Amino acid sequence: MGNEDGPKQATIIVFSGALDKVMAGFIIATTAAAMGMEVTMFFTFWGLSALKQDGPAAADCERNWMQKMLGMMLPRRAADLPLSQLNMGGMGAGMLKQIMAQKNFSSLPELIETAIDLEVRMIACQMSMDAMGICREELIDAVEVAGAATYVGVAQDAAINLFIS
Amino acid sequence: MGNEDGPKQATIIVFSGALDKVMAGFIIATTAAAMGMEVTMFFTFWGLSALKQDGPAAADCERNWMQKMLGMMLPRRAADLPLSQLNMGGMGAGMLKQIMAQKNFSSLPELIETAIDLEVRMIACQMSMDAMGICREELIDAVEVAGAATYVGVAQDAAINLFIS
Amino acid sequence: MGNEDGPKQATIIVFSGALDKVMAGFIIATTAAAMGMEVTMFFTFWGLSALKQDGPAAADCERNWMQKMLGMMLPRRAADLPLSQLNMGGMGAGMLKQIMAQKNFSSLPELIETAIDLEVRMIACQMSMDAMGICREELIDAVEVAGAATYVGVAQDAAINLFIS
Repeated sequence: MGNEDGPKQATIIVFSGALDKVMAGFIIATTAAAMGMEVTMFFTFWGLSALKQDGPAAADCERNWMQKMLGMMLPRRAADLPLSQLNMGGMGAGMLKQIMAQKNFSSLPELIETAIDLEVRMIACQMSMDAMGICREELIDAVEVAGAATYVGVAQDAAINLFIS
Repeated sequence: MGNEDGPKQATIIVFSGALDKVMAGFIIATTAAAMGMEVTMFFTFWGLSALKQDGPAAADCERNWMQKMLGMMLPRRAADLPLSQLNMGGMGAGMLKQIMAQKNFSSLPELIETAIDLEVRMIACQMSMDAMGICREELIDAVEVAGAATYVGVAQDAAINLFIS
Repeated sequence: MGNEDGPKQATIIVFSGALDKVMAGFIIATTAAAMGMEVTMFFTFWGLSALKQDGPAAADCERNWMQKMLGMMLPRRAADLPLSQLNMGGMGAGMLKQIMAQKNFSSLPELIETAIDLEVRMIACQMSMDAMGICREELIDAVEVAGAATYVGVAQDAAINLFIS
């Protein structure tokens, strides 16, 4: 392996934009980082929704009509992600959030904050951003933009590699 | 890697509760175990349904109304898992089971038995159990209860790590 | 690890038959292969649809009525795969393909060609073919047929292992 002397690495591809799956990704990422691993998360396709920051869509972001339509159908920010099952128009996601709060588990926005604090590297997939019409300024500041080669470069030396679809 | 002298390890996170995906997890797990690997399966979120044992819900398991509602909507036992696609109200799952039986492939309950015989370690995610209102006595005996740190601890020394979502 | 002197290896299990997920698998596979890794893709369950070649179903392929019914409900070829979300009866998949073409990204058939050129090893899961009633001659020529033990044998020496479900 490449970096035998440094800390062990982990990578997680977040392809899904479902609340339950994205949370699972961040729970593993923050746990691994808290245990001393160097963690890289790579957000692609639907997973990009988890990185959107609050606020209106950027007016100067070029989008064709298909990308505009897609933008209207996708969640506008991490807080709006649906469940992968039993979402029931958002009621399921709302119930999960309420239960998590009652149990004092971290919410997704809190997990993202923790990931940033623990220096989890978060990469947004350039190609997916181009395809879906998402611009850099619409994503949270902590995110880096890169491509599949960057992912493979890290993953081939990592001890844990996961794909969350 | 941590245990260079022992057998190679594999971990599989089973996040999905769909019959086809859970079976894929157990087929890989039992194959790897039969080939001499030490295998750990970590069941979380919807995947916990695969570990439920037959019988009524435990009466003394504390659940709020949201968790009770969730419990009514989720499969009660491994034999009731739906397909991830073409389930058609259970007809798809029934057809898959019938075809598997005709071909003399193992059913999910048989695969679980084989996994136990091959000493596959099965861990139920503590946090998911708390969130979903599932109690220890509702899961099959062979299961151990632990958290994400236990998973990461094993996975960082494993040769194969998979996430089945 | 097994082959410390050869190139690093990667394996990708393609369990999903959704266009977006299959494309993600091929993008990672071709990127890794272009970077010098030895890549093995293992297609199972719904993922087999991505390997079907154009043309009518093989007349001499034995299928019971359940398998025939399944065959009618599944995509007939890689070009017909649906999106995992927002497919809207194929409109979503069509729009994604149109955007990809505008941006000069490779289509799925082009990615498959590139994978073949880069000597990505593509394995179709024997057990899934038997269960779903898919015969060898219905899959593209470049495909090899094998079982889970072949997959585990490769994966346990690979630097990257992913499961796309």
